[in-house]
Amino acid sequence: MTEGDFVAILGLGLIGGSLARDLAARGARVAAYDLDRGAVRQAIDEGVVHEALDADLGGLREASVVVLATPVDAALELLGRVAPLVNTSTLITDVGSTKARIVERASRLGLDGRFVGAHPLAGDHRSGWGAARAGLLCGARVYVCPADRADPALVDRATRFWARFGAEPVLMRAEVHDETLAYTSHLPQLLSTALALALAGRGVKRGDLGSGGRDVTRLAGSSPEMWAPVARENREALHHALLAVERELGALRSALDGSDAEALRERLGAARVWFEV
Amino acid sequence: MTEGDFVAILGLGLIGGSLARDLAARGARVAAYDLDRGAVRQAIDEGVVHEALDADLGGLREASVVVLATPVDAALELLGRVAPLVNTSTLITDVGSTKARIVERASRLGLDGRFVGAHPLAGDHRSGWGAARAGLLCGARVYVCPADRADPALVDRATRFWARFGAEPVLMRAEVHDETLAYTSHLPQLLSTALALALAGRGVKRGDLGSGGRDVTRLAGSSPEMWAPVARENREALHHALLAVERELGALRSALDGSDAEALRERLGAARVWFEV
Repeated sequence: MTEGDFVAILGLGLIGGSLARDLAARGARVAAYDLDRGAVRQAIDEGVVHEALDADLGGLREASVVVLATPVDAALELLGRVAPLVNTSTLITDVGSTKARIVERASRLGLDGRFVGAHPLAGDHRSGWGAARAGLLCGARVYVCPADRADPALVDRATRFWARFGAEPVLMRAEVHDETLAYTSHLPQLLSTALALALAGRGVKRGDLGSGGRDVTRLAGSSPEMWAPVARENREALHHALLAVERELGALRSALDGSDAEALRERLGAARVWFEV
Repeated sequence: MTEGDFVAILGLGLIGGSLARDLAARGARVAAYDLDRGAVRQAIDEGVVHEALDADLGGLREASVVVLATPVDAALELLGRVAPLVNTSTLITDVGSTKARIVERASRLGLDGRFVGAHPLAGDHRSGWGAARAGLLCGARVYVCPADRADPALVDRATRFWARFGAEPVLMRAEVHDETLAYTSHLPQLLSTALALALAGRGVKRGDLGSGGRDVTRLAGSSPEMWAPVARENREALHHALLAVERELGALRSALDGSDAEALRERLGAARVWFEV
């Protein structure tokens, strides 16, 4: 049996939908579930999904791989429903932006032999089936976060599953992943949101921004349904990351106001050095 | 005499250099000065600039248009040197990201009949002659900021000069421009810088970011030589803009930490509403 010959995808959003397209293009049989039944119907009409799963998720037993591709709070809940339905050789993975809680949940559900967490760094501000596209994962980094006691063979299966789509798997402990991503992903998201809210409060429209300002505010268009649970789940690390930026903003404001004209230039210069490395 | 048949450009950076390319492509004669004599030589070799100006700026008297395209602190100083060198029919304009001080300086120099400030919203994080390219101004908004008592005919000349390159002139009082740009341009710049510095402090490299994080930090690669004088000149408005974002970040952090799980989702939702308008 070829790995991934029958894959069940729970959630046909940007990542799940794109994965479905890549799988179908490689000849896999794809079953899908989404709260939005219209998305599933559209995916079936396009020949991307071959089977709609019911809310009771009957039919998962046949899947060689099950992918949880919902917001992280829904994925935690779904994992408990999926656990008794899959057979012992099924690989379960996910695509959520936080990993510690779901990896821990999987262990508590007795899924150490079947679950390997994953986080493809392939999202953008768009969301939903309409944004899904083939090749989204190609060249994207995918963090692969197994349980501490995971069988290397299982980890290898998960790694190879993601590598099939041209993604670049990077093994990382779930706790390290979440601390790192607080800075590399969740922090930029909230900064973009904060700028958008400040501009909205000032009555500035996005169309008034130049290309630079539009870039900085692009993530403000992201899905609240996806991001709020991610940020709340990773709130401790993200709290510290936000404080770090608030400190830098305060320092920039001091440099702006102070008598030393060179202080601001030096901070801008230090940022450019970081940018260029 | 066709407007802009002989244009002197002081500063061959991203904007000045791109303008030189557009002018040359339209058959204008272009004279240029830059502290970096190599850039001028290269522009001459490429047939974009036809004449190198000396540091004493002799030769400006023949120019129908003089464009100051240096960092804003240098432009203020240059304007004083240019004033006695141009003839009474010369249009003097600039490209700086702040407008109040240079418009005021022009008035004090007796240049109300010759100077109209301008700010093409066409910059990005790259800088220098090497980044200059034809068509940069096409479709870009150009803020045109005359002195309060400016002759409408002079303003019209300036507007038509910029419109030649496909730019879209928007008339605005210099003080309104600076207050507006504090939010639409200078604030995103400093936010991007603050994030870069926070990431640098944490040892995170730009290559570790996803596409969203890379977008938010792109402006951190901007020229400190260009931006430090802009921010310092507009420090009062920018100070308030920074405070507005710091307030939003604090509110996001409270929503993250608080017991109301919906509070964060609501803020993310409000930002997305702004994004989508």
